[in-house]
Amino acid sequence: MLLTTDMMVEGVHFDLRWITPFQLGFKLVSVNVSDIYAMGGRPEFMLLDFAAPGDFEKRQFDSLFDGIAAALKTHKLSLIGGDISAAGLVVLSATVSGSAAKVVGRGGAKPGDLIYVSGHLGDSACGLQIMKRIGKTIMIEKNEQVDFGPGWKTVGPLVRRHLMPFATKPERFCGKATAMMDISDGLFIDLSRLCKESGVGAAIYEDRIPISGELRKAAQYLDADPIDFATGGGEDYELLFTAPSNVKMDAFCIGEITKKGLRMIGREGDVRKISIKGYQHFAL
Amino acid sequence: MLLTTDMMVEGVHFDLRWITPFQLGFKLVSVNVSDIYAMGGRPEFMLLDFAAPGDFEKRQFDSLFDGIAAALKTHKLSLIGGDISAAGLVVLSATVSGSAAKVVGRGGAKPGDLIYVSGHLGDSACGLQIMKRIGKTIMIEKNEQVDFGPGWKTVGPLVRRHLMPFATKPERFCGKATAMMDISDGLFIDLSRLCKESGVGAAIYEDRIPISGELRKAAQYLDADPIDFATGGGEDYELLFTAPSNVKMDAFCIGEITKKGLRMIGREGDVRKISIKGYQHFAL
Repeated sequence: MLLTTDMMVEGVHFDLRWITPFQLGFKLVSVNVSDIYAMGGRPEFMLLDFAAPGDFEKRQFDSLFDGIAAALKTHKLSLIGGDISAAGLVVLSATVSGSAAKVVGRGGAKPGDLIYVSGHLGDSACGLQIMKRIGKTIMIEKNEQVDFGPGWKTVGPLVRRHLMPFATKPERFCGKATAMMDISDGLFIDLSRLCKESGVGAAIYEDRIPISGELRKAAQYLDADPIDFATGGGEDYELLFTAPSNVKMDAFCIGEITKKGLRMIGREGDVRKISIKGYQHFAL
Repeated sequence: MLLTTDMMVEGVHFDLRWITPFQLGFKLVSVNVSDIYAMGGRPEFMLLDFAAPGDFEKRQFDSLFDGIAAALKTHKLSLIGGDISAAGLVVLSATVSGSAAKVVGRGGAKPGDLIYVSGHLGDSACGLQIMKRIGKTIMIEKNEQVDFGPGWKTVGPLVRRHLMPFATKPERFCGKATAMMDISDGLFIDLSRLCKESGVGAAIYEDRIPISGELRKAAQYLDADPIDFATGGGEDYELLFTAPSNVKMDAFCIGEITKKGLRMIGREGDVRKISIKGYQHFAL
């Protein structure tokens, strides 16, 4: 049996100026389900704690629950209870239970294992930057589009990835993975956690980190390096895992596990020590 | 398997001007464990979500966790994980899992069943009133005493009942109870919930509601009616349950289940319709 909990606090994890209650509810479920998937499990039940100020409207409340319901349906789990309270700001906390035939932890990576990610990285972090520029909500759940920079065809997928992330299912990987986790705080910080728990190091190849065409275009428009979004930005909810080198995996191989140290090998073959970026609570 | 969650929000559920972090941690566990006990279960594991502003000190954080640890030890359960975040105010949310050989719900009360409570009611609500008058924290966990009104011998137990409540174990009752819940929001409001879920009514005898000697004395000092604390005040965490009239129960019998309506029979035999008091979130 697996149990996980994740909290979302207004002003820290989200800003109602650019996320709709529907999107917030959808995201809350995804974030928690992602933790169950990350252990190779299947989500079953959810409990919800919800707190909001008195001026949070019924319309917003209904929309929040519609978003929760949509994500519950997507991932096939049931909301079975919770607690509701008044509060000075909006706080959501969910607990999801699940089960796994075999739990995949963070501690099993061995030197020589290859390192994989399940999909493109950095889209969500870039989507957040774009939302801050746009500065208002976009009802993507109702196919609303906004004209911004390189156009909605580029911007839309990035923004969606941030506002309504999908948790990545682990079935394809967890039979063979030696260690696994989801990327919630950023590739570098999450990889450093996996390495720490496994007592190993890692070498990452910069040019193998999967970056979407949309991210490349949008980063150019924002005058930013897409690799910074992909390595330092969080909330991708892709899976990061390791597997023996003789096993074929349907994922992006970005490097290999070493005995110690965290290094990135640049496009020119230059070796850099990885410095940990990613979201830090209570950072000074 | 049982799962429950309860949230405590600064300014709504507690005020750090008169509760210490230790007491807050202890109470959070009690409140959640009480929900498991209320279903006839045994608590096993806890997850904790904790959010606080940046100026919440390490000393306070350590004290909070000491209080949590003390309550976990009392009720023999383990903290297995959680989530920590920055926030504009202190928010605690816990989820407790447990197990029960046979779950006792709220829906099994039948006309003719007797209504029981496991202990004195109203102490906690009176303790809160006293704390508001005292207006500062009392480290009862370190045996601190305060000189107030009728004296610490009277005031101490009431204040302790509010700040560091104990969840009431159900073993003695749950084999025979037809319906059960804990009294968290107040006798009348919680009884009305039990009756609603069972599709029945209730008649309560005012003079059978168990009131402690300390509450009588303190209520007199506060110029209040102890019965108002006992019926309208919350956070007693005593068990409220029903059982067939031919079964002997080691608890206070306060009335009986009827076909419909909620009535209190006064000391003079006068019959009054029960009006629901108790804490209401989002009340206008």
